[in-house]
Amino acid sequence: MTSSVETPAAASPSGRDADPAFALHRGGKIEVVSRVPVDTREDLALAYTPGVARICTAIAEAPDLVYDYTWKSHTVAVVTDGTAVLGLGDIGAEAALPVMEGKALLFKQFGGIDAVPICLDVTDLDELVETIVRLAPAFGGINLEDISAPRCFEVERRVQERLDIPVFHDDQHGTASVVTAALRNAARLTGRQMSDLRVVTSGAGAAGIAVSRMLLEGGVGDLAIADSKGIVHAGRDDLNDAKRAFAAESNRAGLTGSFVDALAGADVLIGLSGGTVPREAVEAMNPDSVVFAMANPDPEVHPDVAHAAGARVVATGRSDFPNQINNVLAFPGVFAGAMRVRARCVTEGMKLAAADALAAVVGDDLSETCVIPSPFDPRVAPAVADAVARAARAEGVARL
Amino acid sequence: MTSSVETPAAASPSGRDADPAFALHRGGKIEVVSRVPVDTREDLALAYTPGVARICTAIAEAPDLVYDYTWKSHTVAVVTDGTAVLGLGDIGAEAALPVMEGKALLFKQFGGIDAVPICLDVTDLDELVETIVRLAPAFGGINLEDISAPRCFEVERRVQERLDIPVFHDDQHGTASVVTAALRNAARLTGRQMSDLRVVTSGAGAAGIAVSRMLLEGGVGDLAIADSKGIVHAGRDDLNDAKRAFAAESNRAGLTGSFVDALAGADVLIGLSGGTVPREAVEAMNPDSVVFAMANPDPEVHPDVAHAAGARVVATGRSDFPNQINNVLAFPGVFAGAMRVRARCVTEGMKLAAADALAAVVGDDLSETCVIPSPFDPRVAPAVADAVARAARAEGVARL
Repeated sequence: MTSSVETPAAASPSGRDADPAFALHRGGKIEVVSRVPVDTREDLALAYTPGVARICTAIAEAPDLVYDYTWKSHTVAVVTDGTAVLGLGDIGAEAALPVMEGKALLFKQFGGIDAVPICLDVTDLDELVETIVRLAPAFGGINLEDISAPRCFEVERRVQERLDIPVFHDDQHGTASVVTAALRNAARLTGRQMSDLRVVTSGAGAAGIAVSRMLLEGGVGDLAIADSKGIVHAGRDDLNDAKRAFAAESNRAGLTGSFVDALAGADVLIGLSGGTVPREAVEAMNPDSVVFAMANPDPEVHPDVAHAAGARVVATGRSDFPNQINNVLAFPGVFAGAMRVRARCVTEGMKLAAADALAAVVGDDLSETCVIPSPFDPRVAPAVADAVARAARAEGVARL
Repeated sequence: MTSSVETPAAASPSGRDADPAFALHRGGKIEVVSRVPVDTREDLALAYTPGVARICTAIAEAPDLVYDYTWKSHTVAVVTDGTAVLGLGDIGAEAALPVMEGKALLFKQFGGIDAVPICLDVTDLDELVETIVRLAPAFGGINLEDISAPRCFEVERRVQERLDIPVFHDDQHGTASVVTAALRNAARLTGRQMSDLRVVTSGAGAAGIAVSRMLLEGGVGDLAIADSKGIVHAGRDDLNDAKRAFAAESNRAGLTGSFVDALAGADVLIGLSGGTVPREAVEAMNPDSVVFAMANPDPEVHPDVAHAAGARVVATGRSDFPNQINNVLAFPGVFAGAMRVRARCVTEGMKLAAADALAAVVGDDLSETCVIPSPFDPRVAPAVADAVARAARAEGVARL
């Protein structure tokens, strides 16, 4: 389960046949099935013409009925333009489809939400926004996926402005909710407050900025973020708008050097970059340090190395180590909760509520190898959904 | 099963509860389910990260693999803009969703094809075309549905020009294939050649023009089409481009009057307008006349009236009379056949092949009450699919 992205097995057709991932993917991973019988003329006359016309007429007269009499209330579009797929980069709309199908099956399995892969052959920002807005009517939510930064920030903001259904870029906020939950529990385990923690994030893409922003909202004492050129600070003249805005909100310590330099005396390393962190950099962190090395398939620092270098809590994105930071802990419950109350959007409060609920599921099981629940813990999605629905009501964005 | 579009039952919430169509539609008619297990970390590692990355990489390197390792090979988008939904007109994208869901379940039930409802909130012709082209990558075919004429002609032509997957406006060509099949059998039953028949079509919308065009291609002797102003002929100055083009191809007899006048001495009435045809007009037709009165839920002339007025073969769109002209006889097999051979488009020859195959299924069962098979005849979709696949290969548009 720890194969790298490019294995010899993927290199040739004969090799493909021997790879269980290819065998499993043959013909795709999802299908559309009927929830109603279509076996007789009478069935057809209810599910299709003439019966269906009465439903259409009722919805035309009272638009909210679309939630009662179609799949809209429980169906999301998983939308990508294929520009930032996993760690593979801009591989295009069709090559992104296996990930979107995978997302769809996770939505169903963990959240009871139906999800449809939508892979868009368009990358212009304005056109991408327009296209997503136009295809929204059949869906009760929009999960944006694998859209490159910094375009993804603007796409999400503008699509949400135009639509009154939840719009959620999972690479940003799903990751942010799970990391925030894990860090809350790591702080609790090591007897510290969030405000005690100085955090350094490696990676200023979609996930890096969103995680860092939520950690600041969640109360961490200070946080600096690094891109490939080093620590992001207001004095740099090579920042895009998203990084520039974030520089103004973060890095109160005024760090300016390299990512590795910034780790000296830090409490928390958040790795979302795919780079490599040397053992010495972890050794220079404060005692009881927390290392979340989430690059896939190769963490920025191997868990064994991190522990040997003094880290007390280590999390990765991998399923074969403890503390897997996996978005599936958040997005099914976030959408299930938001859609249950017909939320008009996903607010920051709803995202933080998801993080808090996720952290709380760990409860008394808290340990160095358990700061975040297993993706298969059946309590997770219901707890997240309940918390998100409550937050939506508390914030006045729920319609039910 | 013969309720009209607007019934008292649809008028009030309490009435809605008593209507079995509303009960059946609650929560929608379709869902997305997994075809693979997602029960363990090992399952997740194959269906999602890290395993899925190998599939994405393979598709990025060899794009045709998207047909082997995703749902694309068996999945179509059922796309509407909500401008011409059933006989209800421009009711909008959301109110059209129940029809698109219904279509999706028919695709699965009869053709084994997965279908996704896509209801677009855009009506500008250029933008509609662009939007459909952009959302195509995840789908192996595009079924256009309930898009108003004359826009639908241009939408279909331009989308098909841009995409190398089958694009098919079912309201046009599905109806055309089924009507052509039924008329072939009606001619056989009454001992006439297609070339012996003079046809008058009422309704110059999407279906009316497409049916009439296919009948001419299928060899009928002469055909005139009428809109609400009467027979379409080259001398009229109130015709849109589609009607003007069709006027040049049809009406060799040079008829110019009303639809009812044109029926005098005609052999076949094709009703696709929703208007009413008086008994006297049918009486004025030739002996052994053929009346296809397909307005739903109220045929242009009731079958009992038509028979009493001398019609020998009567067909309607309704399931409670013999000879139901139902698009479900065509579109599942058309897409199943076209997609099986990865056709780049749907040619006229493929549509005619579908009609011929459909007519042939009736075989020795041919009678006045059986000129077209039942929608539930299990031979239909396989026969249509085989014929369409053969035609695609014969015409050089198949990739397999």
